[in-house]
Amino acid sequence: MDAAHRVGIVGGGQLARMTGLAAARLGVEIVVLDPDPHCPAGAAGAEVLVGDPADFDLLRQLASRTDVLTLDHENVSVDHLGQLEQLGVRVAPGSVVAEMAIDKLRSRTRFREEGFPVPEVAEVSGLGDVGEFAERFGWPVVLKASSGGYDGRGVDVVASIDAARAALPGLGSKVHAERFVSFDQELSVMVARRRGGEVAVYSPVTSVQRDGMCVEVVCPALVPATVRQAACDLATDLAERFDLVGVMAVELFVVGDDLIVNEIATRPHNSAHHTIEACETSQFEQHLRAILDLPLGSTAMRSPAAAMVNVVGRDDGEPVAAHLADAASVHGASIHLYGKADRPGRKLGHVTAVAATIDDARSIAQRAARRLNGTTGDQEESA
Amino acid sequence: MDAAHRVGIVGGGQLARMTGLAAARLGVEIVVLDPDPHCPAGAAGAEVLVGDPADFDLLRQLASRTDVLTLDHENVSVDHLGQLEQLGVRVAPGSVVAEMAIDKLRSRTRFREEGFPVPEVAEVSGLGDVGEFAERFGWPVVLKASSGGYDGRGVDVVASIDAARAALPGLGSKVHAERFVSFDQELSVMVARRRGGEVAVYSPVTSVQRDGMCVEVVCPALVPATVRQAACDLATDLAERFDLVGVMAVELFVVGDDLIVNEIATRPHNSAHHTIEACETSQFEQHLRAILDLPLGSTAMRSPAAAMVNVVGRDDGEPVAAHLADAASVHGASIHLYGKADRPGRKLGHVTAVAATIDDARSIAQRAARRLNGTTGDQEESA
Repeated sequence: MDAAHRVGIVGGGQLARMTGLAAARLGVEIVVLDPDPHCPAGAAGAEVLVGDPADFDLLRQLASRTDVLTLDHENVSVDHLGQLEQLGVRVAPGSVVAEMAIDKLRSRTRFREEGFPVPEVAEVSGLGDVGEFAERFGWPVVLKASSGGYDGRGVDVVASIDAARAALPGLGSKVHAERFVSFDQELSVMVARRRGGEVAVYSPVTSVQRDGMCVEVVCPALVPATVRQAACDLATDLAERFDLVGVMAVELFVVGDDLIVNEIATRPHNSAHHTIEACETSQFEQHLRAILDLPLGSTAMRSPAAAMVNVVGRDDGEPVAAHLADAASVHGASIHLYGKADRPGRKLGHVTAVAATIDDARSIAQRAARRLNGTTGDQEESA
Repeated sequence: MDAAHRVGIVGGGQLARMTGLAAARLGVEIVVLDPDPHCPAGAAGAEVLVGDPADFDLLRQLASRTDVLTLDHENVSVDHLGQLEQLGVRVAPGSVVAEMAIDKLRSRTRFREEGFPVPEVAEVSGLGDVGEFAERFGWPVVLKASSGGYDGRGVDVVASIDAARAALPGLGSKVHAERFVSFDQELSVMVARRRGGEVAVYSPVTSVQRDGMCVEVVCPALVPATVRQAACDLATDLAERFDLVGVMAVELFVVGDDLIVNEIATRPHNSAHHTIEACETSQFEQHLRAILDLPLGSTAMRSPAAAMVNVVGRDDGEPVAAHLADAASVHGASIHLYGKADRPGRKLGHVTAVAATIDDARSIAQRAARRLNGTTGDQEESA
């Protein structure tokens, strides 16, 4: 097609896959850079530039073939992104805001400098630093790999110096300590911003995490409207302060009526998958609009409530796809499978339901997800 | 992915493209047979078996690589479908019902035999037959190519024997005459059926045609509820009488409170594109569910009203994609572009809007489509 937009994505996982499906709807073409030609995005039809995202020459090649570069994950070099920008490549998010998502210690520090509420934090170069941190802020202490973690990997909550000793070697070369926040619940807010300043924010969600991995999301978030508004304002402030281009998920701890920024992700995010069915513009289309500098779409909800439950690899070793018929019999459940190889506990898909109430939506999404997840899914009953 | 379902589609046009996008969401793999490696479905990521759908060996090859064969268009040999079935290939729709869609004279005849309301019809082997038909039923007479027509091609409404003389050579070797129906409006009903008998029917739509091509659809149809119900019943009866497997669009003329069957299409159809946003299960996912023998999804609407307006190639020669930003600024408009080369009047995409009322939905969808269509779209204002 003439005049088609072309987007390069570093990484070809499920986020790139779903971005690619939104792109195809708009007539936008996608090329992903991934070591695996059969990565989820490739399996769903994106063109795959096969190779290592750490290879700067490949990043340049990807840039030369597309109008704008964006990210599927945080395992990318901030320096590389900066160098690409200096070569005139449009990188979205820009390297400055990307660094906030890639380097968790740096983001904590910068957010604190800018007056955003974040947990106390300190770099850790050895066990002594952990002890000192615990003396100031008490046990338990959260130890985090400053970059590269996801879905609970790269995070340990330790209650003693012995536990810290055991945890540190597994967290890599750059580690920091964070004050443990005893939160009431976790919220997530998705915000989008274009270069020129246009911002659109989605209704915040309550996310239920288990072992650091998101298992369920309900929308609207289960907090008073004033807290929801505060969360939207905070996300908008962050987007504007750091000149975001694209979408950004802001994960928040709720403590009483206070909000504390946990993490950000400057890309589409698991906590906003429900926007595909529940909102006038999905997070994936919104990300494309933002990075291609198209007008942002409406974030209005199409229904009063929505719920999303993740689908993970079954403990019994059966492929989840073998249970598709069983799940498909749950009316109102929108099933998404990512074309990934089955492995127990691995994120393989999700189910969304929209309904008149959160309870109805949760019940539908959980029922369908449980049929795919097998026994693993029974946990979700009690969430 | 293990246990993935695989679907073969004969033809890789926009219907195969959108079916492919629905398939990717479910983790279902698609292979299309099309002469063009860059066909719309291929451009959106379906694997393309490049070749002529009239080549039986290629059809067999497609069948050998997939669980079930289905159709993107009617330009396929009924004999070939029958032969494949005899070889044990699952063809959906089956060759019997496919023939109803492929051979319009045959469908008229069979429908009449089965008691369904269809216009009077007669085979035409020369000008004399047209004159005889006009003597019985009056002018104008509808002359149709008995197969191969679409979007108004292969149809001529002639008001005199001179006009018939001019029209006949352009209609090919097998032509029939139909009584002209002076209808109040056109409805379309989408129905799905599984092998075992499960049937699901969507809310009928009013479709606005121009020069034989669908330009706009509104849902629910602009007729009394009793007529809508009669349309659903008629579509269900047809699906059951002919053992449909898959989805089928039934196009109906409304004359007073009476319904007359115009045409059927045993595949996803332009008149049900709104189901992507407006219904719990899109026509594309429903077709996949039906042909893979998965439980059918809910056809319930997610909003009170929906409208769909087609996007066609601009008269001014500019690519429609160059006007994407302009159209994207219309809030609530869901834009779909098919990745086809621009050509004036050619179907290149569509815009859907869902809203509280049909008027609101139409207004949004028309506004966005007009920006893509350019001056061509102004016609839609008066529709």
